[in-house]
Amino acid sequence: MKIARFDGGKIGVIAGEEITDVTALCNVDAAEWPPVGPLRMIAEFDGLKEKLEDAVKTGPAIPLADVTLETPVPWPNKLIAYPVNYHDHAKEMTSTGLANIQGFFLKANSSIIGPNDKIATPNIAGREFHHECEIALIIGKTCRDVSPEEALDYVFGYSCLMDITVRGKEERVMRKSYDTFTPIGPWIVTADEIADVADIEMKLWVNDELRQHANSRDLIVDMPDMVSIASSAMTLYPGDIIATGTPAGVGPIQPGDTVTIEVEGIGRMSLPVVAGDCGANVVFDKPYEFKRGI
Amino acid sequence: MKIARFDGGKIGVIAGEEITDVTALCNVDAAEWPPVGPLRMIAEFDGLKEKLEDAVKTGPAIPLADVTLETPVPWPNKLIAYPVNYHDHAKEMTSTGLANIQGFFLKANSSIIGPNDKIATPNIAGREFHHECEIALIIGKTCRDVSPEEALDYVFGYSCLMDITVRGKEERVMRKSYDTFTPIGPWIVTADEIADVADIEMKLWVNDELRQHANSRDLIVDMPDMVSIASSAMTLYPGDIIATGTPAGVGPIQPGDTVTIEVEGIGRMSLPVVAGDCGANVVFDKPYEFKRGI
Repeated sequence: MKIARFDGGKIGVIAGEEITDVTALCNVDAAEWPPVGPLRMIAEFDGLKEKLEDAVKTGPAIPLADVTLETPVPWPNKLIAYPVNYHDHAKEMTSTGLANIQGFFLKANSSIIGPNDKIATPNIAGREFHHECEIALIIGKTCRDVSPEEALDYVFGYSCLMDITVRGKEERVMRKSYDTFTPIGPWIVTADEIADVADIEMKLWVNDELRQHANSRDLIVDMPDMVSIASSAMTLYPGDIIATGTPAGVGPIQPGDTVTIEVEGIGRMSLPVVAGDCGANVVFDKPYEFKRGI
Repeated sequence: MKIARFDGGKIGVIAGEEITDVTALCNVDAAEWPPVGPLRMIAEFDGLKEKLEDAVKTGPAIPLADVTLETPVPWPNKLIAYPVNYHDHAKEMTSTGLANIQGFFLKANSSIIGPNDKIATPNIAGREFHHECEIALIIGKTCRDVSPEEALDYVFGYSCLMDITVRGKEERVMRKSYDTFTPIGPWIVTADEIADVADIEMKLWVNDELRQHANSRDLIVDMPDMVSIASSAMTLYPGDIIATGTPAGVGPIQPGDTVTIEVEGIGRMSLPVVAGDCGANVVFDKPYEFKRGI
């Protein structure tokens, strides 16, 4: 099932080129703040699934072209990310800080945007802003300390994710948590529709240039292990998102570019890059005094 | 005003040794999941303040001893943290990665616990688990790109915060995001009650031993600058929490210990340390192959 958020917080199920509004069925108030309705929908999905399937059959359906899709989970408990999780990317970054050596970090929820939003580059002088092409894994059930063997039982679905980054040596979390730096969408494809999480193709283009092309079979820490490692440390909640890491080919983006991501079996989205009007701060005034301590 | 969460998600105002239940006044459903009622209360506080003051006058009040206090904001948009933010702590960590050079990182929301919870040490062999004594700053209004001069206008209040850490060289975010690793409480003191954020004493004891004692005047990046830097990168939302950094004196805790924090003008809380039954993972199996890349 393809589940989307649209037109100001409504929940919809997509079939073909149409979307059925299931907001009321999911007991979600589209206007609520903070926007945590999708978390409750995910938590209650087992009881909702049949009703949602019926709703798609009975309609009414709206042409997808007539709605504005939004990011499916805007306010999770946490947005987890695995660094340097493909060997070819490790090589290009001359990095030995692989995901299986470092573990995970976090990105700010407030960096999440959707398929119809824009990526805004900060006004930080002399820095590059890079695209990273990733698959998002969305947790479906509360869990702690799950084994890799049982990990996929706790997954709700998958989405496309771009991890945008200011390159530099400051704290990675800050460099990756800028507003608009985590486009996720265009919808969630539920886990039952993905035949093999270790065989998903993904591609990213800047304008018409193919910059990244990889398959999830080349992950260093695979998806079951990512869920297992994260859950060894933290209780995972429905709606928690894992950015599963990027392959080789990361590179700069700049205002005027359009970035397109496509993940096999999930979907495709294109976001324009615009110049943001803020983002500089004292930390970036003296970047190269930096030497990491702890 | 002292605002607390208690007895399964209720909201209360504390006066002396009593608490008044204002859950209904704040339009909060104590049982809602996820527990985001406190965020709405904070967002709407300007319109609620007078009603809450009246409620405290008219009662009924419950003896504090008869309720169980919980952490005031369990599900913020984000839990921001500034590293190495006192010069004396930088010296003891032999670190040059100061907060003004590195910027901020994040801890997981799911690591937040309250004054009546327990700190659980992970079952990771051969590691120390350290206490860090901090002041929590809680954002009151949505903001982006605020100057240090106007930053305190966006602050809702302050609380005590312990930042518990697995020492090591893996990704700091993972080492600090374990469940139970961010006790925050025992309540929030609203900003109007803090005369000078650059003159707050704080102390932390392990059992009867005073381990940390400092004053916020010795911060490297002060509180207005912390809000300003975070908001340069990210939209801050009501309920966002900033862990403002720890002074010298960090050290190990172990099961059987009791950790007590006291922050001047805010409050005091004591939490027992117990042995958790999980937390080890493959990342900790080979800690010293680590060499930080990006």
